Amino acid sequence: MSKNNARALDIKNGCIEMSHGSGGRAMAQLIHELFTATFDNSYLAQGNDGALLPQAGGRLVMSTDGHVISPLFFAGGDIGCLSVHGTINDVAMMGAMPLYLAASFILEEGFPLIDLKRIVESMAQASADAGVPIVTGDTKVVEKGKGDGVFITTTAVGIMRHDITLSGNLAQPGDRILVSGTIGDHGMAVLSQREGLNFDAPIVSDTAALHELVAAMLDSGAKLRVLRDPTRGGLATTLNEIAKQSGVGMLLEETAIKVNPPVAAACEFLGLDPLYIANEGKLIAICAAEDTDKLLKVMQAHPRAKDATIIGSICEDPHCFVQMTTKLGGRRIVDWLAGEQLPRIC
Amino acid sequence: MSKNNARALDIKNGCIEMSHGSGGRAMAQLIHELFTATFDNSYLAQGNDGALLPQAGGRLVMSTDGHVISPLFFAGGDIGCLSVHGTINDVAMMGAMPLYLAASFILEEGFPLIDLKRIVESMAQASADAGVPIVTGDTKVVEKGKGDGVFITTTAVGIMRHDITLSGNLAQPGDRILVSGTIGDHGMAVLSQREGLNFDAPIVSDTAALHELVAAMLDSGAKLRVLRDPTRGGLATTLNEIAKQSGVGMLLEETAIKVNPPVAAACEFLGLDPLYIANEGKLIAICAAEDTDKLLKVMQAHPRAKDATIIGSICEDPHCFVQMTTKLGGRRIVDWLAGEQLPRIC
Repeated sequence: MSKNNARALDIKNGCIEMSHGSGGRAMAQLIHELFTATFDNSYLAQGNDGALLPQAGGRLVMSTDGHVISPLFFAGGDIGCLSVHGTINDVAMMGAMPLYLAASFILEEGFPLIDLKRIVESMAQASADAGVPIVTGDTKVVEKGKGDGVFITTTAVGIMRHDITLSGNLAQPGDRILVSGTIGDHGMAVLSQREGLNFDAPIVSDTAALHELVAAMLDSGAKLRVLRDPTRGGLATTLNEIAKQSGVGMLLEETAIKVNPPVAAACEFLGLDPLYIANEGKLIAICAAEDTDKLLKVMQAHPRAKDATIIGSICEDPHCFVQMTTKLGGRRIVDWLAGEQLPRIC
Repeated sequence: MSKNNARALDIKNGCIEMSHGSGGRAMAQLIHELFTATFDNSYLAQGNDGALLPQAGGRLVMSTDGHVISPLFFAGGDIGCLSVHGTINDVAMMGAMPLYLAASFILEEGFPLIDLKRIVESMAQASADAGVPIVTGDTKVVEKGKGDGVFITTTAVGIMRHDITLSGNLAQPGDRILVSGTIGDHGMAVLSQREGLNFDAPIVSDTAALHELVAAMLDSGAKLRVLRDPTRGGLATTLNEIAKQSGVGMLLEETAIKVNPPVAAACEFLGLDPLYIANEGKLIAICAAEDTDKLLKVMQAHPRAKDATIIGSICEDPHCFVQMTTKLGGRRIVDWLAGEQLPRIC
């Protein structure tokens, strides 16, 4: 306990050891040489138990998200950028601008430092691209077999810049439902990687930060009621949540819901329904009917929503059913995801 | 995927299943019947991806802490109340008043719901006692063998109410070092539980929220430079961190550092040094010499610091050594914790 530990962190060959979580010199070294150096901002450099931040000029928004995705690396991203995007998006869906992120790491003994470095660099890049710094953090280590490489919980604080309230309980009959692009990309990218499936065309996760798209949508002045990102449970489950919260029904048009052809093919091959597959870079918007065209134009003009479509409308329904007119012209109920479809997708 | 799942959550006999993390009906039920019902506040009841909060009238503080303690239940507390206290204390040590908590759960498949309920109730009680609501949360599930029961990451947001900056780099030669009470209680309580050790006198964790003690200390007007809670790595490591950050040395008096007799006996039996054992309800204060007596009186008048003592002073030292005059009158260097002493203590 009294010996010095002066050697530098061996990123190339080293692994996480229990001592990296014990609060002593090894932990200080890991934090200093990897996390603080890579995330590199003045808040984190304060070096205290938390970050001291400026006063925020608006109502606060706070959201947290644990990330346990398996595998850690997949086509289009990794747990690092995903953990930044996912939590930024939760704040954005409230109609708020994300300002700061906190990151908590639960590392498994034996996890290669080179992989951790890659994840941390991916987080730092996503954070820089989004303009939302990681201002404070925490590192814990669990014994081999008591974790799974790395779990990352990120928490975001944001502020409301508009005098608007978006909430899952505000959808009204007559409102239109829009989706910002193709569905199912993230979930099928992860599943393909996990199962070692190779399809002719590559499937790439859509993981992306959506706060700038949301800012453009809010700036349009369109009467938005609800924004939600259809992650776990996919489009179908998220729409059912909103229908239940608002006490309304929904009518969807299957032909208006876009699915990338490789995703559609993979879903068909595996017997999965893309309506239930997770997305990490798409949003659902529910908007007053009269403003729908204006909103759609703003969305389609933004690089993150160029494939946006109107997929249906809100109706009165005491049962809060989500129904869909199928490609063949029939109508079916689109229920909640029950049971597990794809575990550890985010 | 289209079947209803209408049975109520079987808290008494049920276990966490993968479906509780999949974003569908089972997850909604777990969140609604256990988390939202127990934490019970208007922010959480908003039911969105995050919480919409009032504007905060001061500089913000943000802190995050992952909790992986093993065992989950120990004398004096459990992972639930610990996860509330730990993060509240990190915000308090910045000199800020904690306002809101976010909680992210990573649950292992097969974890008994009855244990989860006990943990969630303990969190709710600690949150209510502290007056800091849990306003938003997240739940993930990992396969059996990929986690360890439950990990909880809590993140707190607070505001600075005083025009003061506390930071680990502000200790100055001549300042005094105070500790709010006995050391080593938390770590030894957990270790005793883990190893199945029975000592004659029970050892109980000191886990507690310290924000009200800190408020009283700040209200005293004493010139505080640094507050820090000596958790992982214990008093010795935390003092070394401060010494390094401030570029100063420290001189401690061993006779002034209080250790509960059962903790001292257990440490001696196990060959451990209480200076390196984690605390979860104690703080270190570094204060201008002329205000020390005033501060000590305020601390001793507070129930969380009635055993507070002055344990030493800051001195000039380019090597940033922490030295201690021992009970026998000698002097020794008190180094950082190197390597691992007690893994998963918080």
